Amino acid sequence: MVKNLEEFFSERAQGMKVSEIRELLKLTNKPGIISFAGGLPDPELFPAEKIEEICTDVLAKYKKHALQYSATEGIMPLREALVDHMKRTSPCDFDVNNIIITSGSQQALDLVSKIFVNPGDYVVTGAPTYLGGIGAIRAYEARFKSVALDEHGMKPDVLRTTLDELEKKGIRPKFIYVVPSFQNPMGVTLPEDRRKEIAEIAIERDLLILEDTPYCELKFTDQENYKDIYFYAPENTIHMGTFSKILAPGLRVAWVLAPEEVINKIVLAKQGADLCTAAFPQYIAFEYMRRGYIYNHIEEIRKVYGEKRDTMIEAMKKYFPEGVKWTEPKGGMFLWVTLPEGCDTVRMFERALKRNVAYVIGKAFYVEDDGKNAMRLNFTHSTLEEIEEGIKRLAETIREEMKLSGCLKAGNSMMAF
Amino acid sequence: MVKNLEEFFSERAQGMKVSEIRELLKLTNKPGIISFAGGLPDPELFPAEKIEEICTDVLAKYKKHALQYSATEGIMPLREALVDHMKRTSPCDFDVNNIIITSGSQQALDLVSKIFVNPGDYVVTGAPTYLGGIGAIRAYEARFKSVALDEHGMKPDVLRTTLDELEKKGIRPKFIYVVPSFQNPMGVTLPEDRRKEIAEIAIERDLLILEDTPYCELKFTDQENYKDIYFYAPENTIHMGTFSKILAPGLRVAWVLAPEEVINKIVLAKQGADLCTAAFPQYIAFEYMRRGYIYNHIEEIRKVYGEKRDTMIEAMKKYFPEGVKWTEPKGGMFLWVTLPEGCDTVRMFERALKRNVAYVIGKAFYVEDDGKNAMRLNFTHSTLEEIEEGIKRLAETIREEMKLSGCLKAGNSMMAF
Repeated sequence: MVKNLEEFFSERAQGMKVSEIRELLKLTNKPGIISFAGGLPDPELFPAEKIEEICTDVLAKYKKHALQYSATEGIMPLREALVDHMKRTSPCDFDVNNIIITSGSQQALDLVSKIFVNPGDYVVTGAPTYLGGIGAIRAYEARFKSVALDEHGMKPDVLRTTLDELEKKGIRPKFIYVVPSFQNPMGVTLPEDRRKEIAEIAIERDLLILEDTPYCELKFTDQENYKDIYFYAPENTIHMGTFSKILAPGLRVAWVLAPEEVINKIVLAKQGADLCTAAFPQYIAFEYMRRGYIYNHIEEIRKVYGEKRDTMIEAMKKYFPEGVKWTEPKGGMFLWVTLPEGCDTVRMFERALKRNVAYVIGKAFYVEDDGKNAMRLNFTHSTLEEIEEGIKRLAETIREEMKLSGCLKAGNSMMAF
Repeated sequence: MVKNLEEFFSERAQGMKVSEIRELLKLTNKPGIISFAGGLPDPELFPAEKIEEICTDVLAKYKKHALQYSATEGIMPLREALVDHMKRTSPCDFDVNNIIITSGSQQALDLVSKIFVNPGDYVVTGAPTYLGGIGAIRAYEARFKSVALDEHGMKPDVLRTTLDELEKKGIRPKFIYVVPSFQNPMGVTLPEDRRKEIAEIAIERDLLILEDTPYCELKFTDQENYKDIYFYAPENTIHMGTFSKILAPGLRVAWVLAPEEVINKIVLAKQGADLCTAAFPQYIAFEYMRRGYIYNHIEEIRKVYGEKRDTMIEAMKKYFPEGVKWTEPKGGMFLWVTLPEGCDTVRMFERALKRNVAYVIGKAFYVEDDGKNAMRLNFTHSTLEEIEEGIKRLAETIREEMKLSGCLKAGNSMMAF
């Protein structure tokens, strides 16, 4: 190996460390474990038969294009279909020139960071927020300023205060990263008035919003209908959508809807990054939309995930000791559990594994040191039986942690370990 | 749009300009044109029926994994199959921990640049070299030092001199980018002794080589058997391979074979860049290997491409005026044409388009100002008839250019325009 390899790496790479969280997640793969840790869709719902039917047709109809290099912007029929799709939640004026296909939403996070972030630049995020977003942005040596969330997501007034503080220091953040619907990790959703106000803040202050909506279709009631922030500020918003949660993550097909000048720069960055997203999965996604399969499939996902969410919440009510709180998301894949102050979800992780149950530690979702007594639970990947049993195991672990940290109330202490 | 967007972009993005070459390439899409410009495989050879058979089986057998998120390193069976595949040309000691799957070779170029290149760092390349390589590396604000190629590729003695010059200035380049077999754009191949010597130079000087081998399987005779540079310097070489030219580019599946410490850092960079390469195409590539289809398919590609190369060379002999030279590659997809000094392939491009024929201008492949009288021709995408007719049209254009630049010899001047 070349000498002093570590020093030979770029400065940005020297900042890329093996994350404690990834190491913890690896431990959750052991057999017999019920894991609420991953962010995985339910594989039982993957529409394999429909995809098979589509593969056959795509290879017959589009062979020469579906197996060839494609345009960096993505295949035109898919971009056209996404214009119609996006006009449901952003009924405003845009067209295919505002859309680029990316290799999953993660690539959109990477490319947007690549074209905006110089080392030392600031990005504003929610706290907590999606840890893959933090990772992508941090890889370009950004600094973070975070805005605490409440049960309805990012608070516009706190955002204003945060931006004021930055402005006083002469700092204009490169963008504000927002997950508006069924947010990862909290499961909370911005109501319409907050979306509008956050959009107005961006317009007033001439800032960009990076709007990430992987879960927006996964709503458990028909009431959860919102406009995108993009709709309220199309000139200031880079909107990200993905097929990972409404078709299959194994295709890596996502998209960005943004002002044309931003799309053009993303195209240049993507040429260097991977030339183009695989054409074959793009044609699969296109045909999935064209045949009208997608909206029926979304209905099915909603039903199943809603039932799983209900099961998890019922189990938590039944088994969790008093003093433990959780969010009750109206959609998405995750909920957020907060233990009493003094508890430590990192410390209790190993004991959870011994009981064959896993979660993600709360601190993984913070850029600052926070989330010590919190955890994220995924309710989409496990079966209903696993959810019930896993929450039971987790409840025992939590009781033990509360006892150890001295915050178990007397009324609950009869439980034997 | 936010004010002064151009200034708001990162410095690296400000350096990403719409390339003249891309704009020229766009013009080559007009109907009726015979284009030798693209770098596309022959779509007639895409094994669509075999892929269809495999898709059906993959969705039945591996549904839950093939449609799900996969490991950032890539799916294990494919990495295992690639260990065997790579041991043919690099019979040395490595295993799956030395292999990561990437979203096309372009992503490997991007990730390697991301983990090594700080703004202002030097990278050594051949001159001419693959323009997508230049693009990926330049996106991280590298500077280039180039080494002129001859008909056998990079000359080790010139490489030594170049490295000496850098060393005198206290510069240690981050890597030496080499395309050893049927190089893009020249079609030239490093003989075994040069591979060995370049490897030795890297070892002696404690440097890294980035070895890019997209065309290595596309050899037109059985004599073209070489070891990889990786074989001679496994601790100093980052080797890149791809399925794009031996299966289909529309799957975007490639791989890197490198020292484990480098792979580990690429994994971290890839987590931020796209989480993982699409699992579904990875399973397709794996089954394509497992069923033994791949080597038969490579034989077929070799036969067809060899015939196309022959046809192009015969046509050039027949139609090109005296004074025009070209390489005669023993494999790959490209050859390199050099017009007499004084000719200008940029100037004549428009006139070529008028005659409905296209090529890539030579200067596209240089980081310095060079290649003015050169062009790259692709011989794999057109049919035999198109190759014959296209070379005829190109010959007329070249004659005209030579006449205009005063370098057409008397003996050829009878040709009427």
